[in-house]
Amino acid sequence: MAKTMEELVSHLKTSGFIFQGSEIYGGLANSWDYGPLGVEVKNKLKHLWWETFVKKNPLNLGLDSSIILNSNVWKASGHIDGFNDPLIDCKKCHNRFRADKLVEDFDVNAQAGAMSNEELENYITQNGVVCPKCQAKDFTNIRQFGLMFKTNQGVLNDESSVVYLRPETAQGIFINFKNVQRSLRKKLPFGIGQIGKSFRNEITPGNFIFRTREFEQMELEFFYDEQADQNWFEYWLNEVEKFLAKIGVEKTNYRLHDIDPKDLAHYSKRTIDIEYHFPFGWGELWGIAHRGTFDLNAHQTLSKQDLTYLDTVSNSKILPATIEPSVGVERLMLAILWQAFHEEEIEANNSRIVMKLPYNLVPYQVAVMPLQKQQNEQAKQLYLDLLNDFDAVFDETGNVGKRYRRQDAIGTPFVITYDFDSDQDHKVTVRNRDTMEQDRIAIVDLKTYLKTKF
Amino acid sequence: MAKTMEELVSHLKTSGFIFQGSEIYGGLANSWDYGPLGVEVKNKLKHLWWETFVKKNPLNLGLDSSIILNSNVWKASGHIDGFNDPLIDCKKCHNRFRADKLVEDFDVNAQAGAMSNEELENYITQNGVVCPKCQAKDFTNIRQFGLMFKTNQGVLNDESSVVYLRPETAQGIFINFKNVQRSLRKKLPFGIGQIGKSFRNEITPGNFIFRTREFEQMELEFFYDEQADQNWFEYWLNEVEKFLAKIGVEKTNYRLHDIDPKDLAHYSKRTIDIEYHFPFGWGELWGIAHRGTFDLNAHQTLSKQDLTYLDTVSNSKILPATIEPSVGVERLMLAILWQAFHEEEIEANNSRIVMKLPYNLVPYQVAVMPLQKQQNEQAKQLYLDLLNDFDAVFDETGNVGKRYRRQDAIGTPFVITYDFDSDQDHKVTVRNRDTMEQDRIAIVDLKTYLKTKF
Repeated sequence: MAKTMEELVSHLKTSGFIFQGSEIYGGLANSWDYGPLGVEVKNKLKHLWWETFVKKNPLNLGLDSSIILNSNVWKASGHIDGFNDPLIDCKKCHNRFRADKLVEDFDVNAQAGAMSNEELENYITQNGVVCPKCQAKDFTNIRQFGLMFKTNQGVLNDESSVVYLRPETAQGIFINFKNVQRSLRKKLPFGIGQIGKSFRNEITPGNFIFRTREFEQMELEFFYDEQADQNWFEYWLNEVEKFLAKIGVEKTNYRLHDIDPKDLAHYSKRTIDIEYHFPFGWGELWGIAHRGTFDLNAHQTLSKQDLTYLDTVSNSKILPATIEPSVGVERLMLAILWQAFHEEEIEANNSRIVMKLPYNLVPYQVAVMPLQKQQNEQAKQLYLDLLNDFDAVFDETGNVGKRYRRQDAIGTPFVITYDFDSDQDHKVTVRNRDTMEQDRIAIVDLKTYLKTKF
Repeated sequence: MAKTMEELVSHLKTSGFIFQGSEIYGGLANSWDYGPLGVEVKNKLKHLWWETFVKKNPLNLGLDSSIILNSNVWKASGHIDGFNDPLIDCKKCHNRFRADKLVEDFDVNAQAGAMSNEELENYITQNGVVCPKCQAKDFTNIRQFGLMFKTNQGVLNDESSVVYLRPETAQGIFINFKNVQRSLRKKLPFGIGQIGKSFRNEITPGNFIFRTREFEQMELEFFYDEQADQNWFEYWLNEVEKFLAKIGVEKTNYRLHDIDPKDLAHYSKRTIDIEYHFPFGWGELWGIAHRGTFDLNAHQTLSKQDLTYLDTVSNSKILPATIEPSVGVERLMLAILWQAFHEEEIEANNSRIVMKLPYNLVPYQVAVMPLQKQQNEQAKQLYLDLLNDFDAVFDETGNVGKRYRRQDAIGTPFVITYDFDSDQDHKVTVRNRDTMEQDRIAIVDLKTYLKTKF
């Protein structure tokens, strides 16, 4: 079946997963709000990550640092000086573009990402790159555009009160490394994980929830002694792939991209990007970066605090190296939703939309419905009882076929129908989302039946 | 036992619950980061709220809207025009104050909250209010100071690009009311709940995590037809009190404050504040507000969208009224942590700090420790096995008494010791946090034993 991103976006809206942000006011750039179904998928995804990378991993701990930090954090990390994009304007129509994107869209083989601003400007002039909006060939020079959102904290509105919204959660971890290590008496190696919002004032957000200015990250910073141990990069890459398998992201839909050393970010000694085959092409899903000692060293230098770890065996001070597996919640959701989205012919002239979400990420595990109004009370009681143990929803409107389609379309794995016979035989019909087969199950056995499924 | 806020703050820091924000750079105003133990308490608290007010309540649904919304949202809600504090400067030392706080600190009975700016200025002059910093009696006039954080989105840096960090999560719910109602085919009455960060550029943040500029809210907006039903205010007040009981907030520590009609916010028809007896005095913990149709009406007017609900029985369009129970995560945490914090004499010249957290909010449910190094391996295996079913921690450093104290101090309800005899009798010692009594339990029965406790 051919499916498109537009169809997915439209389906997610009408069914209650994801709405356009500030829609009643005409929206706001590329912003999106998560509806009742979307927030449940998101919460389950975050919960699974937290369980896997923080709570159930005996080496790791969690953290929740602030979005607004002391601005020295971004000085040390290099964000104030270096976190910006090359911005260029069309002199004719005054539209603004990312110069590297402009060149890349003009010629994908031009390797625009590796060019300096001067090289970009030369390329644009020499190759006659045209404005995508008005076709003119007259651009301004490139200037650097800072990607951090800037605001003022406190009652003064001057330079001294400037603060930034964090562009990544990682730095909140580095600046708390010593506090965490000391208070929990952790020995190397150990990791600190965090989930939270980050903000980047992207020049060109887009592709639905793939690139938004406000987004959520799940980052782990894993600290270890580089002299003692070299294999943590592979270990965490492997853990990430195991996690992807756990949430049903198929190996055929992603690839590993070992970043060429000359293209690495300034802080990285090695990076592998896991790229997913999104509807618009390959895009970064999850990055595993070897940050070396860059961050702790930068913060130690600027803060003049001792951030080393005292190894009690060798009695020496160590500045740990870091491996960082970092993923955006929304990107992971997009991959999962895209993969789950199916339209199936079920018979001649009849098709259904079905969200084949993995069972551990569905908004509802089970829907309960009365066959007709006469069974409303009994079905409602059954629903309320199931709600104690499962994510359940009650669905009473429309005919049975329509309700099956509706639950298929939001990914509910099991639909239970309380019918004419249920009062007598104390059984209900349980219908499976994927096979569409129906079982007749005694009400008394229902919870056990469902528990074996999840 | 007399305990102080300072002792609590210090204890929470050294034990890994809450650190000063950006501490290595000297901090940032009144900001706080949640360490490995604090984030677990916070997550459990949020999870409980979500289960109670969203997932397990058959009337309600969840939502996750953006922090940055179209600025018209704040125009309609009244925040751009009216969400500000009266700011006043001391002409001598140039310190800045909230004028109403200045008067209140001068005389608690002055009812500064109800005064207009002119009344405040007159009071300050006539009563000779002095600057708390330099004792001068020379103040500027009062000017209004907007409490929303302002930033610019996109590449332009002018008025058209101004956006705000949301000062409350509530408005994100109101603007999505119609999308949620329609996509999930909800009938009145129903509620929409949301958990998320909000930001207020308070002139005087303070009292530890009680008032911070960045904070997290848990808000429910409950929509109903005012003509049909009048009792939802009492219903939600009762649900809130049930929730407080569930997390162990004692009724003797809070009181209900029915706000005097003349002191009500402009949007409110009735508000009850649940005030908690914090170490610094009574402070607002949870507000239950009857917002009437104020918000939906304001958004309907400005957006020119039809936000009414079509009642299919009477075939009439209804603009629903709203009851809003709204609580700050950090305030609730402060109440819980303060209440849990105990120092106990356990014998002559021996005391312990114990965090008597309710079992449903502890960072760790169980700690496992080897009596001595020889039992490390076996104890570690036991810990890893328990970790599959419980929030568990392995503790191997220091003598047994020291480790008991350490686990008491972070609230771990059960400490399991694997000792000399455990290899032979396949039993371990389980020690209770509150009673300090010890049970000898067969390892094979351990999970069942613990499950009955939680």
